Amino acid sequence: MRLGSIEAGGTKFVCAVGDEQFHVLDRTQFPTTTPAETLAKTVAYFKQFEDELDALSIASFGPIEIRSQAPQYGYITNTPKPNWPYTDFLGTLKAALNIPIYWTTDVNGSAYGEYVALPEAQRPRSLVYFTIGTGVGAGELVNGDFLGELGHPEVGHVRLKRHPDDLDFAGICPYHGDCLEGLVAGPTFEARLGKPGVEVPLSDHVWDIMAYYIAQAAVQETLMLRPNKIVFGGGVISEPFMEKIREQFAQLMNGYAEVGALTDYLTMPVVPENGSATVGNFALAKRLLG
Amino acid sequence: MRLGSIEAGGTKFVCAVGDEQFHVLDRTQFPTTTPAETLAKTVAYFKQFEDELDALSIASFGPIEIRSQAPQYGYITNTPKPNWPYTDFLGTLKAALNIPIYWTTDVNGSAYGEYVALPEAQRPRSLVYFTIGTGVGAGELVNGDFLGELGHPEVGHVRLKRHPDDLDFAGICPYHGDCLEGLVAGPTFEARLGKPGVEVPLSDHVWDIMAYYIAQAAVQETLMLRPNKIVFGGGVISEPFMEKIREQFAQLMNGYAEVGALTDYLTMPVVPENGSATVGNFALAKRLLG
Repeated sequence: MRLGSIEAGGTKFVCAVGDEQFHVLDRTQFPTTTPAETLAKTVAYFKQFEDELDALSIASFGPIEIRSQAPQYGYITNTPKPNWPYTDFLGTLKAALNIPIYWTTDVNGSAYGEYVALPEAQRPRSLVYFTIGTGVGAGELVNGDFLGELGHPEVGHVRLKRHPDDLDFAGICPYHGDCLEGLVAGPTFEARLGKPGVEVPLSDHVWDIMAYYIAQAAVQETLMLRPNKIVFGGGVISEPFMEKIREQFAQLMNGYAEVGALTDYLTMPVVPENGSATVGNFALAKRLLG
Repeated sequence: MRLGSIEAGGTKFVCAVGDEQFHVLDRTQFPTTTPAETLAKTVAYFKQFEDELDALSIASFGPIEIRSQAPQYGYITNTPKPNWPYTDFLGTLKAALNIPIYWTTDVNGSAYGEYVALPEAQRPRSLVYFTIGTGVGAGELVNGDFLGELGHPEVGHVRLKRHPDDLDFAGICPYHGDCLEGLVAGPTFEARLGKPGVEVPLSDHVWDIMAYYIAQAAVQETLMLRPNKIVFGGGVISEPFMEKIREQFAQLMNGYAEVGALTDYLTMPVVPENGSATVGNFALAKRLLG
């Protein structure tokens, strides 16, 4: 069995071919330029494997249309990314490759990868995967299925109680200002301090503020979904920063809902090297084959 | 078929017997006093119908233990209500009545009632029921099942962005201060204005502040779950107030996620006279019979 994975990010595309154990056999990546150029490269990559490829899954940046009955099912919809609004991503791939193709969001792909990477007996009934990077979002699995029928969740845009030392920061979301993404996405370091996050030591108070907001988002997920596990990926996340998030989470929750040991509940990905979405895509492609 | 319903609130218990069309055939209510007295009255009520009753469902105030493998399954756990912490509610009923008994939260019962009250073809895949009354909480249905495995959701305790005209109000939640319940539960009228909500006209600016917070909670549910419908019940809710909530929701969402007409999406209960939980209990009891 050969399975294909497209992790379509706003900055780069990662395409891979794997086997039914979800091992990567071949992999390529290229920058996200225009839809025409980027999707042509994607198609050309998979055409090489056309004779052996059984199924494919796409985990895409969004917003995307996921309602299978909608006229624009398979499109990237009203994204702020230039050139990409209303791109028929799935249709382009289906026209070129005569195999079953699964279509979901980038964070759903990563959530599924983290789910299947666990031994079957340890797979939680409910898992949330947050990415805190250039953008912020979450994929949510309940009983092995993604939440969201009217559309996919947009957890990056929830509002939060503001940190008392951060009340003057307006946030950077073009739609909502100080929603979660507007307060903690990677580019907020430039907006707050005039330099990128990699140049800001963890001892800087801005990291406490970031941890407070991210912990609050984890509290919201906990109180709303009662998931068994919340995984955090993306460029802003590191294990020392996770410790700050866990501390803030404990303070905010104040013992209200039992979640077990925080080192098991709020974790970094188990799949190494940002590979969660690739593993998730392989598993979702395999699921299409029944 | 005869089905029983216990709606166990912190102020009063409502017990009822209905048929398989969920019509109420008999109904009683009494104040919530001590567990011993209140549960004895409850048992005595259903003992009258012992020969005909096929199944029963309990929708209880909480927090409650819903994990069926937990030693305290069926208990009300660490409630702030005097005398009630760690009461074996389900066990007491099971010891007295030899029929299948369903056990869930008050808001889950109401959510299920609103779900089954709709004609089968119109039942949404996902529905949220909020109560905004003495306490605040929500029940969440996805594919006909309740969300929450580690425990039930505690949506009343999410944090919110504070309204600029309400920054001085500390909130009344003993655990979190200014969480959702701490900001919008019925008793906040006394805390903010020194008089009960029924004496505060809808033209008072406090209602705009309340609408802002409740709309934010609806935005959080929308962005996290993408439900098909959010129903609001409880003493604080009225149709004119719902209009304010819809206005604030539209402003906060800023067109970000499509939810259809707000008059269909954010609604009051379809079951009249606070009967949602009773109907939900009948349906959950019937479901136990397969």
